[in-house]
Amino acid sequence: MTTTSAPQPLPSDLDIARAAQLRPLEEVAAGTGLRPDHLEPYGRSVAKISLAAARDLADRPQATYVLVTAITPTPLGEGKTTTAVGLTQGLVARGYRATVALRQPSMGPTFGIKGGAAGGGYSQVVPMETMNLHLTGDFHAVTAAHNLLAAMVDNHLHHGNELGIDPHSVAWRRVLDVNDRALRNVVVGLGARMDGVPRQGGFDITAASEVMVILSLATDLSDLRARLGRIVVAYSFEGEPITAEQLKAAGSMAVILKDALAPNLLQTLEGGPALVHTGPFGNIATGNSSVIADLIGSRMGDYLVTEAGFGSDMGAERFFDVKCRVSGLRPDVAVLVATVRALKAHSGRFTVTPGKPLPPEMLAENPDDVRAGAANLAHHIEILRSFGVSPVVAMNAFPGDHDSEHDVVREIAEAAGARFAISRHVAFGGKGAMPLVEAVEEAAAEPTDFRYAYDLDESLVDKITDVARDVYGATGIDLSPAAKRGLEQFEALGYGEFPVIIAKTHLSISSDPTLLGAPRGWRMPVREVRVAAGAGYVYAIAGDMRTMPGLAKHPAAERIDLDADGNITGLS
Amino acid sequence: MTTTSAPQPLPSDLDIARAAQLRPLEEVAAGTGLRPDHLEPYGRSVAKISLAAARDLADRPQATYVLVTAITPTPLGEGKTTTAVGLTQGLVARGYRATVALRQPSMGPTFGIKGGAAGGGYSQVVPMETMNLHLTGDFHAVTAAHNLLAAMVDNHLHHGNELGIDPHSVAWRRVLDVNDRALRNVVVGLGARMDGVPRQGGFDITAASEVMVILSLATDLSDLRARLGRIVVAYSFEGEPITAEQLKAAGSMAVILKDALAPNLLQTLEGGPALVHTGPFGNIATGNSSVIADLIGSRMGDYLVTEAGFGSDMGAERFFDVKCRVSGLRPDVAVLVATVRALKAHSGRFTVTPGKPLPPEMLAENPDDVRAGAANLAHHIEILRSFGVSPVVAMNAFPGDHDSEHDVVREIAEAAGARFAISRHVAFGGKGAMPLVEAVEEAAAEPTDFRYAYDLDESLVDKITDVARDVYGATGIDLSPAAKRGLEQFEALGYGEFPVIIAKTHLSISSDPTLLGAPRGWRMPVREVRVAAGAGYVYAIAGDMRTMPGLAKHPAAERIDLDADGNITGLS
Repeated sequence: MTTTSAPQPLPSDLDIARAAQLRPLEEVAAGTGLRPDHLEPYGRSVAKISLAAARDLADRPQATYVLVTAITPTPLGEGKTTTAVGLTQGLVARGYRATVALRQPSMGPTFGIKGGAAGGGYSQVVPMETMNLHLTGDFHAVTAAHNLLAAMVDNHLHHGNELGIDPHSVAWRRVLDVNDRALRNVVVGLGARMDGVPRQGGFDITAASEVMVILSLATDLSDLRARLGRIVVAYSFEGEPITAEQLKAAGSMAVILKDALAPNLLQTLEGGPALVHTGPFGNIATGNSSVIADLIGSRMGDYLVTEAGFGSDMGAERFFDVKCRVSGLRPDVAVLVATVRALKAHSGRFTVTPGKPLPPEMLAENPDDVRAGAANLAHHIEILRSFGVSPVVAMNAFPGDHDSEHDVVREIAEAAGARFAISRHVAFGGKGAMPLVEAVEEAAAEPTDFRYAYDLDESLVDKITDVARDVYGATGIDLSPAAKRGLEQFEALGYGEFPVIIAKTHLSISSDPTLLGAPRGWRMPVREVRVAAGAGYVYAIAGDMRTMPGLAKHPAAERIDLDADGNITGLS
Repeated sequence: MTTTSAPQPLPSDLDIARAAQLRPLEEVAAGTGLRPDHLEPYGRSVAKISLAAARDLADRPQATYVLVTAITPTPLGEGKTTTAVGLTQGLVARGYRATVALRQPSMGPTFGIKGGAAGGGYSQVVPMETMNLHLTGDFHAVTAAHNLLAAMVDNHLHHGNELGIDPHSVAWRRVLDVNDRALRNVVVGLGARMDGVPRQGGFDITAASEVMVILSLATDLSDLRARLGRIVVAYSFEGEPITAEQLKAAGSMAVILKDALAPNLLQTLEGGPALVHTGPFGNIATGNSSVIADLIGSRMGDYLVTEAGFGSDMGAERFFDVKCRVSGLRPDVAVLVATVRALKAHSGRFTVTPGKPLPPEMLAENPDDVRAGAANLAHHIEILRSFGVSPVVAMNAFPGDHDSEHDVVREIAEAAGARFAISRHVAFGGKGAMPLVEAVEEAAAEPTDFRYAYDLDESLVDKITDVARDVYGATGIDLSPAAKRGLEQFEALGYGEFPVIIAKTHLSISSDPTLLGAPRGWRMPVREVRVAAGAGYVYAIAGDMRTMPGLAKHPAAERIDLDADGNITGLS
């Protein structure tokens, strides 16, 4: 039996978004403590929130802080953004002042495969076209600051290399916010003597820039400026780190990023405040929206709902161990988004391919397929409980779902010690999220016992091991000789106190994307380690990390256009 | 004798700009026909003017249209922007409604050598920090649209090359708004099979993108969309042009550029409207601000003052022959900016180097040095007269200038049939430009007889010859075999009706940068020809054109920073 009673089919995301009556942002911000002079308009429907708001709102009460994360997703994604937006809309519908904090989508994937990332159905942030395109230019500012530093590195090599930079050690690539595989590996500096020093290089997508992470972690302008100065771009022939400060680039980078540090205010389809700010990559970086947006948002009312990238092993772990350490904020509730299709995929009985329809046999009613993938859900619940945060499983209901399958998920969730709610926010907006709102309310009423996965004064090896073992369920880690040397070097250079990020696949809780469910009895190989000294973490590479996506044969860009009235078509 | 009585020395441009009391933009726009609903705020001091204004203001009277151009500049520039702003301020001070239209500065040079390009002294556009940095993100949008097309070209090659693109024919490079010589010549697509098809490529600065020219010429959104579709990125193995439309990229590019087509409203230091929009390169492209800004600005009051890049042989020629053809607007007056230092430089007796102080002997009183460079001024006056537009020589007075030297310039200008005025707008703002205002008023009262340098139905060879001979004073042109073939090909492909742009040095009226004054008896060699089919012109390359600048050993970026209060320092 199909349980949905939503109109079938839903209008397109773009049609729903365009039909929305947007409220003036002063009205959206009413009651949040934000004054009109805190809002710097960017066009009619977006404003930047001036950094002064962080200070001006500091004495207001702390909002209940709700993290939205997910089980291990299929390549299609399981609707964290829609759930975060829908939950927030539901909280507002219930009479709370609630704000949602999201990452800014990257334009690369917008024109690649996704076609947009502002939520979906009746749980969206609007104006969705603006959110999916330039917004207020923050990503462009990251690109510009990043590439100015790159130019100054090569310029230094060209003009005599006074600092003695080893050209083979240059780790600072360039970035562009476009899916462009041809830029992954390039040789620069060809031509004549006046055209620079030839060397290997490459481009990442802007979301993968350390500057993006720095922007997402900086607590104020002077912290931003200091972090930029600490970026290590290369090493000298003597093995000493060469920083952006030494290249005298950090001041100009901060100038370029000055306005980008201010969070962007948009609104949900139901007129509540939505903070959209920064978008660091989810594999090699934090995958979380900005600290400054959460610092402001957590003083704007009763609830702040914030979203972290990929599953709880990825974005949520970094949310707890990196972002919360920087912000000082403590989460009260963690919403774990699950879908029938993802749990069925974890059964190992189906193949899900991005850009293609689901295999029809996955749509048939089969609670046993769901149960076969249930270990994944149980492990994610366990991860959240290990951080001392109350988990609420949000069953993101799809039109073709079956009650019998939802029942299985409920059973597994409750057995693992989590609350459970079916949420129909895509089809019905905030009122469709009411069961989830109630579960979150109950979880928020519980005392929390938040703790990190490791202490900063542990060795880097121990920190990596703690995450691999206690969070991912590995039996241990295997460091390559290069990784071992690297960690020793980082400790010697004073980076030993940094938190760690494990750069691994998001398609498994393990570091092997083919292992579904809740893998056990595996060891995590660490091929290489790197330091993001400006962002302030060491990252361990446990898998093939792609930092520049490619375009499909027929990318979304082929379908996006303007109609005769100048309206955008083809975004979704 | 030194004639200035300005306070010595002037405060820095940044200090002057920051001390300015900005007026609300609604007040700046009062009386221009722009309604508050035409203004889309971007921050507190910049607004985009909605495209609806072009239609809504169309019935208002046509403003007197004043072009600001210059004699052949030194590498330091001779103050066209300050003169355009100062003249506009003077016109407002005299009781007119006057608007200035300028190009948006490129961030590459801002962090390279210039440190800023919003005017100077008491003739600036404010907020100058915003103008010199991202402004409203239009340049970033050009970068994004351009590079999406580049990615789609390489993606097409990667996914089987259905259109049969000859990889060696790909003319569509990539762009970034940064001075980065190491990107001039690169090899892309290295790595593994999944990392694209290896081929030679390169990056230009964003200002050199054809997309920038298209944005500057498009008269409305549908014209923009159509021009983007006509961009030729490569040729097939059969020699057929491959367009952005065929690659299905033009729709997405238009979506990315949708907001960038709307001009930006800022204000002069004296509170008058300033339109800042687009910034195509001055050598290979038009070097003029946007058609749409001029279409709107020409209905905003009594005067529209617009600036064209480099000397009258460069930006002004393209203003007349390309921009005015597209806009349909007719110039009434051409202001020709001259400086004592530039005329002395044309004597051939001195060497002026960017980034270094002038040689001290150039500062000594010596009217004979000025006279020795006078032929350059006379030729530029002749160029303007050949287009049937009344010329006014604006002597941009510097603090160390000598009356005797100004007198020589007046004598030469008047002998060549131009009005003459000394303008002290840098030191005194609009009131310092009063003599110039009066000269412009007089020139505007004269009947005009505007004409192009050639007719569009001439052959491409004839058009190039007309410009070289009648504008530059060459005895003729020498086409390389490749250029000859290229022009024949363009005629065969239907591009024969396009206007032409001569890509040549701006440091001489000729195509040889070492020839000062008014070179005679030279022939113009055309090495290569290219077509900008979306922008709609053929360009003939007569010299070494650099489309990606490099950074100096100690670029401006090393000095730009934030102070403890978060204010920008080091911009000038």
